[in-house]
Amino acid sequence: MADDHLTYEDSGVDYDRIDPLKVLAQRAARATGVHLERDGAREVAASRGESAYVVDIGDAYLASITECLGTKALVADAMREASGRTWYDHIAQDTIATAVNDLVTVGARPLSIHAYWAAGSSDWFDDVERMNDLVDGWKAACDVLGVAWGGGETPCLTGVVEERAIDLAASCVGIIRPKSRLTLGEDLAAGDAIVLLESSGIHANGLTLARKLSERLPEGYATVMPGGRTYGEALLDPTVLYPPVTEAAFEAGIGLRYIANITGHGWRKIMRHPGLFTYRISEVPPVPEVLKFMMDETRQTAEEAYGSLNMGAGFALFVRPEDGDAAVACAESMGVRAWVAGVVEDGPRQVVIEPLDVTLAEESLALRD
Amino acid sequence: MADDHLTYEDSGVDYDRIDPLKVLAQRAARATGVHLERDGAREVAASRGESAYVVDIGDAYLASITECLGTKALVADAMREASGRTWYDHIAQDTIATAVNDLVTVGARPLSIHAYWAAGSSDWFDDVERMNDLVDGWKAACDVLGVAWGGGETPCLTGVVEERAIDLAASCVGIIRPKSRLTLGEDLAAGDAIVLLESSGIHANGLTLARKLSERLPEGYATVMPGGRTYGEALLDPTVLYPPVTEAAFEAGIGLRYIANITGHGWRKIMRHPGLFTYRISEVPPVPEVLKFMMDETRQTAEEAYGSLNMGAGFALFVRPEDGDAAVACAESMGVRAWVAGVVEDGPRQVVIEPLDVTLAEESLALRD
Repeated sequence: MADDHLTYEDSGVDYDRIDPLKVLAQRAARATGVHLERDGAREVAASRGESAYVVDIGDAYLASITECLGTKALVADAMREASGRTWYDHIAQDTIATAVNDLVTVGARPLSIHAYWAAGSSDWFDDVERMNDLVDGWKAACDVLGVAWGGGETPCLTGVVEERAIDLAASCVGIIRPKSRLTLGEDLAAGDAIVLLESSGIHANGLTLARKLSERLPEGYATVMPGGRTYGEALLDPTVLYPPVTEAAFEAGIGLRYIANITGHGWRKIMRHPGLFTYRISEVPPVPEVLKFMMDETRQTAEEAYGSLNMGAGFALFVRPEDGDAAVACAESMGVRAWVAGVVEDGPRQVVIEPLDVTLAEESLALRD
Repeated sequence: MADDHLTYEDSGVDYDRIDPLKVLAQRAARATGVHLERDGAREVAASRGESAYVVDIGDAYLASITECLGTKALVADAMREASGRTWYDHIAQDTIATAVNDLVTVGARPLSIHAYWAAGSSDWFDDVERMNDLVDGWKAACDVLGVAWGGGETPCLTGVVEERAIDLAASCVGIIRPKSRLTLGEDLAAGDAIVLLESSGIHANGLTLARKLSERLPEGYATVMPGGRTYGEALLDPTVLYPPVTEAAFEAGIGLRYIANITGHGWRKIMRHPGLFTYRISEVPPVPEVLKFMMDETRQTAEEAYGSLNMGAGFALFVRPEDGDAAVACAESMGVRAWVAGVVEDGPRQVVIEPLDVTLAEESLALRD
């Protein structure tokens, strides 16, 4: 492997050190579910490990989630001067997408969103254009989603958040009604079709790697890719909002067996379901130029790239065998390209990407976060 | 005023620069409420400006909130070595308290909590004792509250969060059922009793001032206060969890007209309700030593101190005139000292603290955040 090989593991996030906390927290959290039983509510225990927490309140389920943007805003900040724009309208959509794209995987319709915008100093608020873009982008995403922006926190956390940075997160509450919409994967079966939905680019995962790569490029984010766009600009394409697709699919009566948001760990998220299944992919969506560029420049193998980045597929629907084409039609009616890309089989837990001769095997990574 | 006079405004948080963003965001957020109307849900518009956002889902209301701890964890970090303990069990309770104490002011019962723990580097996770204390304290608070810990985010945000720090927040979902529990203050009237509930100390507001003061004290957090405890240790007394009191009050049929969590801006939060009322206080709860110490050492007047810190009263219930004593009994049955401390009157919006000869007048500060 060449010296300039760069993987996600090289880029600085050390999951081995964070995982013990996650395990401790998950164990402690699990023990609190019983509290709900005394009050006419009930935990849906099968939702633990899924992307959103689900509570049965009688005639409906509630789903809730809190998600963090990560470090993507640092790319926008680095691009601010050279590009003459703030990109925070895109960053706002990215932040909301991290929450709602997870929330809808359990069958929920998002109702309300809270913003969490923690700045490192009062200076952050002096860039009025950036502030306006953040608000406008946040509202625009809520409008697309048909979600109420319920409120939020805009603290100034000097000493906690880096002086010129902002920590962005979103929490979201959704409702699952009728209750039959609950989608936790209990019915997933061999023969089900795997429908992949296009991504717009890197979305909000892999940014630590992307930032590391920019440091290696002589022109950094200003590097012009073969198609003519700069690397930095392409990184900032906003994350696709998938809830309109899941809403359309539920309304169309598509038999949704399971839903996975393809985020960290890339296509390994396709095997997020805990069952013993092999996911055989026969059609690979086109790769956004920025992801192809990253794969090439970091000298990653296809196995490494598909195992850590979305590579053009940002979301997966697992549907009844006969519903693949209808699911694709639903997605495309909402402006999102989609493909019946493969099939679920009985077998060892792995993703087999036949056109690339790549197999992503189950391993210890915490795929169910 | 002496040279060593130090107020909240001096301590570094410049609200004048943050407020424009809040105003922009609140205006944009308000315009998204209509989205709910198409789906059998409905925004409770009167909840905008209150401490939690409320949605009518038919046979119940949902309430949701996201709240940030602020900078209190920096005090725990500073005390780590000298005291030989991490204090993160207390910090966990503080973080949860910021969310649930706000959530219950609208009449909600908290159902589930999500953790948001964003560390500045993987190194944060190497202090196993601190990690354990954070998890144990979080779970213990959930147990006291009877709330389900639904999940959370534990990202590592190098470049966004300061290298040795952690940004802690909590989001909470609650239910208001029966719907008659909704408490938005519409019935608040002259003659209602003001019941103040004890605080345990500084809680999670005023920590920037507290940290600034520690820099001025020759022995910093190790300064021994007259009663024998150190300043740092006393600052870390965990925030009182008030939801058991509000639950008991609803169960006892207390006529709750309005509820206010006394946080930033201290006793000015007593006039949080938007109506034209004067809040006349005739009994002042004992002041926790750490707050008395801060007031003395910063040379603040009573008006400054009561206008920025909780000064011994962390939560206020506004109840029917005849229910004051019953509300006190409810609180004390849950181990929280309480006082029928005053009365609501028609008049200009102000808090009159008669025993101290202090009047806190309405002003431009964003009291309704």
